[in-house]
Amino acid sequence: MQNPLNIAIVGSGLVGSLLAIYLKKAGHSVHVYDRSPDIRKIQFSGRSINLAMSHRGWNALDRVGVGDAVRAISIPMDKRAIHLTDKLNFQPYGKEGESIYSISRGTLNRKMIDLAEEAGTEFFFEKKIWDVTLADATLHIGETERGEWEAVKYDVVFGADGAFSRIRHRMQRQSMFDYSQEFLQTGYKELNIPANPDGTHRLDKNSFHIWPRGDYMLIALPNLDGSFTCTLFMPFEGENSFASLTDRKKVEDFFEKHLPDTVDVIPNLAEDFFKNPTSTLVTMKCYPWTYDDKVALIGDACHAIVPFYGQGMNAGFEDITVLNDFMEQYGNDWERIFKEYEKSRKPNADAIAELSYRNFMEMSSKTADEKFLLQKKIEKRFSDKYPEKWLPLYSRVTFSLDPYSQALDVGDFQNQIMEEVLKMDNIETKWDSPEIDEKILELLNRKRK
Amino acid sequence: MQNPLNIAIVGSGLVGSLLAIYLKKAGHSVHVYDRSPDIRKIQFSGRSINLAMSHRGWNALDRVGVGDAVRAISIPMDKRAIHLTDKLNFQPYGKEGESIYSISRGTLNRKMIDLAEEAGTEFFFEKKIWDVTLADATLHIGETERGEWEAVKYDVVFGADGAFSRIRHRMQRQSMFDYSQEFLQTGYKELNIPANPDGTHRLDKNSFHIWPRGDYMLIALPNLDGSFTCTLFMPFEGENSFASLTDRKKVEDFFEKHLPDTVDVIPNLAEDFFKNPTSTLVTMKCYPWTYDDKVALIGDACHAIVPFYGQGMNAGFEDITVLNDFMEQYGNDWERIFKEYEKSRKPNADAIAELSYRNFMEMSSKTADEKFLLQKKIEKRFSDKYPEKWLPLYSRVTFSLDPYSQALDVGDFQNQIMEEVLKMDNIETKWDSPEIDEKILELLNRKRK
Repeated sequence: MQNPLNIAIVGSGLVGSLLAIYLKKAGHSVHVYDRSPDIRKIQFSGRSINLAMSHRGWNALDRVGVGDAVRAISIPMDKRAIHLTDKLNFQPYGKEGESIYSISRGTLNRKMIDLAEEAGTEFFFEKKIWDVTLADATLHIGETERGEWEAVKYDVVFGADGAFSRIRHRMQRQSMFDYSQEFLQTGYKELNIPANPDGTHRLDKNSFHIWPRGDYMLIALPNLDGSFTCTLFMPFEGENSFASLTDRKKVEDFFEKHLPDTVDVIPNLAEDFFKNPTSTLVTMKCYPWTYDDKVALIGDACHAIVPFYGQGMNAGFEDITVLNDFMEQYGNDWERIFKEYEKSRKPNADAIAELSYRNFMEMSSKTADEKFLLQKKIEKRFSDKYPEKWLPLYSRVTFSLDPYSQALDVGDFQNQIMEEVLKMDNIETKWDSPEIDEKILELLNRKRK
Repeated sequence: MQNPLNIAIVGSGLVGSLLAIYLKKAGHSVHVYDRSPDIRKIQFSGRSINLAMSHRGWNALDRVGVGDAVRAISIPMDKRAIHLTDKLNFQPYGKEGESIYSISRGTLNRKMIDLAEEAGTEFFFEKKIWDVTLADATLHIGETERGEWEAVKYDVVFGADGAFSRIRHRMQRQSMFDYSQEFLQTGYKELNIPANPDGTHRLDKNSFHIWPRGDYMLIALPNLDGSFTCTLFMPFEGENSFASLTDRKKVEDFFEKHLPDTVDVIPNLAEDFFKNPTSTLVTMKCYPWTYDDKVALIGDACHAIVPFYGQGMNAGFEDITVLNDFMEQYGNDWERIFKEYEKSRKPNADAIAELSYRNFMEMSSKTADEKFLLQKKIEKRFSDKYPEKWLPLYSRVTFSLDPYSQALDVGDFQNQIMEEVLKMDNIETKWDSPEIDEKILELLNRKRK
């Protein structure tokens, strides 16, 4: 058990709220600050991508007993539904019974804040943190950046304030702070598939729907109310781009031509397209994540990634479980807790950033490619037969707690093997034959260092 | 000729001062701001690395007629003097008559400010710029970050305010701004070799002196007054590190053991070692560099690099000549000037960052390696014989105006060839034979795409 401290968390998002629950259970007093109004009292923004909760996320929730409350507001998706212009393919995500879970960000965030309040956390909304004194964990709070500020001192401050963190902003001005932010030339826009009049879903409810089109793609994730939240990922500039879709007619023609089966299910296409903002996608990396025993960054504040592996929230939640393990191990030695936490998490944050970046290619191009689907089938078949010899990359990331950095390494190794397998003569016809099993077993033995 | 504008330059360093001269010659009104006192009125800081002016730098100075004024305060260095523990090797930098030029940063900066004032620039020292309004090129000036600010509007603002630029800081808060800063785990410390009592130099005056020792190294560059400015580059942590040299005795023992021929020429070793700060080395990249036709970054403010190629100032000066070319080409279309400038310079800034990073290895390890010195001799011999077929990488960076990005590409290509040449049997004895010429010619033909 740790000595009880006064702890401030900046940011009432998913990671901030769950961290609050963990810190309360460890016996601390916890204040959570957010510059925005209480999300439970406002409409959401029209710039959301639905979340896909997977194993790491559930693990973090279950360890403090809030998993079931979240399961109640989620919808399992056990497969990709791949919408080509002329047909619909299905691709299972994992083994029988393995699913990722669609949750609306707003719904989940409201629930998490409720749960954190029930655990005894105090929330302060519309309180803007402009600066932090790192040496003594003092927050500087005020209405405007150039106005009067109030100083409030804590024992420990967590920056859970997202990709554009103010807490990190202060750390960034320290010497020896490594930092990078890189924007994709692809942006995204939220669209909507409403429910049928009877409240049922217009597309298969238990699928992650994807329209892969090479340099752009549309996805749709189910909501509890029968609707789907859609996200169009598309380059800002160029032939098929946000810049090229300048009026109603162009948008409608584009969807009719390239995404024909969406026309009947997205009734407010043009309205939503021009009403909802076009948002940017950024990868942000930094190091260190902590300052002495006083200040630590967590979640997007220290590792913002692009959303193509559905792991942003899961990675942030895993930060919390790893931190909690070190809290249990090192008691009151917060400097040690923080050092071990950042050292342990940094390579995994870098690995999931890389995997997420690569996955845009997989989702937008490869899911439309026969060879790639064949590779997935071979992997699945071999993995079902030899589960101890082959856990597919997607499953290791999504349905295991293996470190992301290990997933990246093993995934690269498996890809080398599959490249050789796919080069075999007549692989299309013999992909499920014992010869292929033999070949993979041989390559596994030969290549393993 | 351009319409005369009111232009502000933030930063009175080398790039800011030279840019002022160029802008004055183009007919503009130029104000230069600096948060520090006038460098002409203060002592310098003890954290300087002497500059090595090379072809790109001279080109920029000569084009506005100030080259000779700077030549008068510089010392040519036509070779590396490589101090091994048991012997001294010399390695020429280029062809007969090619030198780089040692200049003290303080001396040059004072001269450049004098020259800019003579050209009609107005300087404002001890004026702190805290923010800039990008949309209308307005500077916000005040005593402290949280105090009262005065707003001063210009037509165009240049940020020449170095690696920790406040102007860039504002641009960084725009969406779609890519940014990275990465610190080396190696730092540096200034030391000093004073002149002989008669004012002469204690080491060969026309050499760049280097003590290569693997993970650390010492360099010494000559000054006009007979002294040398030395810089010790060394890891912060580990066996041979700043962290390990904790007292006088350890410092003196270390130098005696590893840098024996410096003991007689650095009399104030321990004093200087503990008096002078240990400084950090950072590579900073960002993009874009400009905002509309209003604000542009230049020099270290948009591409800070590590000092191991001696190109930081030269690259900043080349920014100015490239900008000036576009000013002459596009007249009053500043948006076009800025767009072409950033597009043209960015790949070259990235290339010299990469070359500079790699050159730490070359300087600290390879200059002590026989194989590497042999490679340099072979390259030099071949280049002398076939100058149109082979310009060594160092010469292309240092003694030409070829774009840095081209130098990087050609250098990698040449390195592949030299790897094969060095693998030849008995290369040590036949390195200057016609067989080697033939081999290189053949490889050049075979590999060239």
